[in-house]
Amino acid sequence: MEFYCSQEDLLTAISVTQRGISSKTTIPILSGIMLKLTNENLFLKSTDLEITIEYKIPVNSITEGEVILPAKILTDIVRKMPKEDIHFCMTEDKNVKIKSSKIEIDLTGENTEEFPSFPKLPDSNILELPELRLKNMLKQTAFAVSSEESRPVLTGVLFEIKGSSLNLIATDGHRLAYKVAVLEKEPSEPLKVVIPKKAITELQRILIDDEEKYINIYVKDSIVFFVFDNVIFSSRIIEGKFPPYQQIIPNDNNTKIKVNTKDLQTSIERAELLSREGTRSLVKFKVSDILYLTSNTPNLGSLSEQLPVDKEGEDLEIAFNAKLITDCLKNIDVPEVYLEFSGSFSPCLIKPVIGEDYLHLILPIRTA
Amino acid sequence: MEFYCSQEDLLTAISVTQRGISSKTTIPILSGIMLKLTNENLFLKSTDLEITIEYKIPVNSITEGEVILPAKILTDIVRKMPKEDIHFCMTEDKNVKIKSSKIEIDLTGENTEEFPSFPKLPDSNILELPELRLKNMLKQTAFAVSSEESRPVLTGVLFEIKGSSLNLIATDGHRLAYKVAVLEKEPSEPLKVVIPKKAITELQRILIDDEEKYINIYVKDSIVFFVFDNVIFSSRIIEGKFPPYQQIIPNDNNTKIKVNTKDLQTSIERAELLSREGTRSLVKFKVSDILYLTSNTPNLGSLSEQLPVDKEGEDLEIAFNAKLITDCLKNIDVPEVYLEFSGSFSPCLIKPVIGEDYLHLILPIRTA
Repeated sequence: MEFYCSQEDLLTAISVTQRGISSKTTIPILSGIMLKLTNENLFLKSTDLEITIEYKIPVNSITEGEVILPAKILTDIVRKMPKEDIHFCMTEDKNVKIKSSKIEIDLTGENTEEFPSFPKLPDSNILELPELRLKNMLKQTAFAVSSEESRPVLTGVLFEIKGSSLNLIATDGHRLAYKVAVLEKEPSEPLKVVIPKKAITELQRILIDDEEKYINIYVKDSIVFFVFDNVIFSSRIIEGKFPPYQQIIPNDNNTKIKVNTKDLQTSIERAELLSREGTRSLVKFKVSDILYLTSNTPNLGSLSEQLPVDKEGEDLEIAFNAKLITDCLKNIDVPEVYLEFSGSFSPCLIKPVIGEDYLHLILPIRTA
Repeated sequence: MEFYCSQEDLLTAISVTQRGISSKTTIPILSGIMLKLTNENLFLKSTDLEITIEYKIPVNSITEGEVILPAKILTDIVRKMPKEDIHFCMTEDKNVKIKSSKIEIDLTGENTEEFPSFPKLPDSNILELPELRLKNMLKQTAFAVSSEESRPVLTGVLFEIKGSSLNLIATDGHRLAYKVAVLEKEPSEPLKVVIPKKAITELQRILIDDEEKYINIYVKDSIVFFVFDNVIFSSRIIEGKFPPYQQIIPNDNNTKIKVNTKDLQTSIERAELLSREGTRSLVKFKVSDILYLTSNTPNLGSLSEQLPVDKEGEDLEIAFNAKLITDCLKNIDVPEVYLEFSGSFSPCLIKPVIGEDYLHLILPIRTA
């Protein structure tokens, strides 16, 4: 294997690919990136056996071949190389020489025979949408995923096609995030898959903020593929039946307030500082023509504050885990939100005032 | 105690003062900030029994008084208050109400009787110099302090007056940093004190980048005081005799090179990636008309590279702990440095090409 490639291109490729490697892997070969040079293209591959990443860059190819190199040191080295062409050359015993004008580095490579085989991309995609759109959808839902392994299906984000919309849903049993995107092109087949949080997190890091570039989604044999830029990103799907979330989203409300998003977030962050009642972080709402927030930590102190709101419907008292509300608000980027209540023991709905495509549901905490 | 004060002024005061608190303290009262209102001024005080910080701000004073409040929660609360006037009011049972227009917070305070008394500032200072100058002097020396408690005197920075100069010296036995400032005003008395690393670190964080503002240094009864802006910062002095560092700084050299500071730093950082020989991080220098750097980590790989230099004197081979060199170079902000060598087993001197006020000495590592 021998090729020339610019330092910048190679660094981008390696930085993306190394996201597929688990720092906790106990299988030595999986802490490496596989490089394969064929047909004038360099393919970089990584996997933690749950997600796989494949990155393709065109290079100035001299001789084809393949090798596995340790990911961490390879990333560090290429990051610190000068911004000039890099000459990459492998000897027969899988040792690799990485050269630029004044630098020569030798790295010990490994045989590729034991590297896992990668799932094959299906022939046709199910849907496509702009990268930036998907990135925003993930941002508004992924945080609501459960971190408890007892119900695996809740540890991922549900991707679901309804008509010509893609819905993303995540819930941990205490809250639920729901985001809709109307697709420009009707999807080619139905879809209902739950994608693990880890895959979502890595995908968010790799996706770029580009409304012009499209990402294609494919599904086959319990594997989902995201194809974009030079990347094929795949993940296993979580098996199991996602709970029937539509039933718990209330259609009516008895109380509805409109409030400034940032002001509410700041107020709750402040209330959270003095909200430790035992193990719970409790903020109480008294909804009237003004919103009163109170919190209390025994032996430390207490807080009360007022927030101007537009209210429709009945007065109400209700209490929440402060963090669940701030998690939601910090992912909403419109200036005002609605909060809708049906009673002190019923879930609260949070919706942006502009846009019909997002809603968030939070269960209250019963206080004595 | 009752007063009004702007949120911004109070936040600055608290942010500086809380630096005097150790997060590891086992004495509850020392995790608090003492507030004392007297003569229209609010004094904030903190201590970990080694350093003390006192901060003074003028406030709109209503009633004098004093109280201790928990530092962490007080900092968090004031940071999150809106940028408006804060009304601060204490009840007789040491509970404190912190109010702004729409927010009311109650905090449980403590009696001040058991708070340690603070050392008294001596009548006259020893020297003064610009804050920014001192900040830069600390930056170029503090990192060379020893982290081993076996020789306490090496765990601090030596402040020493020689003629009309202030010298700062730090060494850990493997390297030595030496920085000189010529003072505008002759110091009033001699000085030779070692100031603990912890005090230096906190001082660096509090000092601002201002060449116009002066800091005054006082010493009395094994306590050093730094007085600047609204702050009195004091620290105990480390007892013991600092080693006679002048003897180990070589006056001659057999080899001298001039090299680009950033290029040398980047090269050594690169070499460091492949420099693990056993527990040592070893980079080898071959000094000739070109500087050749090599490093090697068994079973992983090796590096060799060339760096253009201006050389005077003999060729030489020598090896160093890479980190000691990069620690020094990243605190030098002139574009070129001299490296001076007397032999493979003698210390190397690093000096900025411009400016006579700094030198750094590094012991080589003997290789087989």
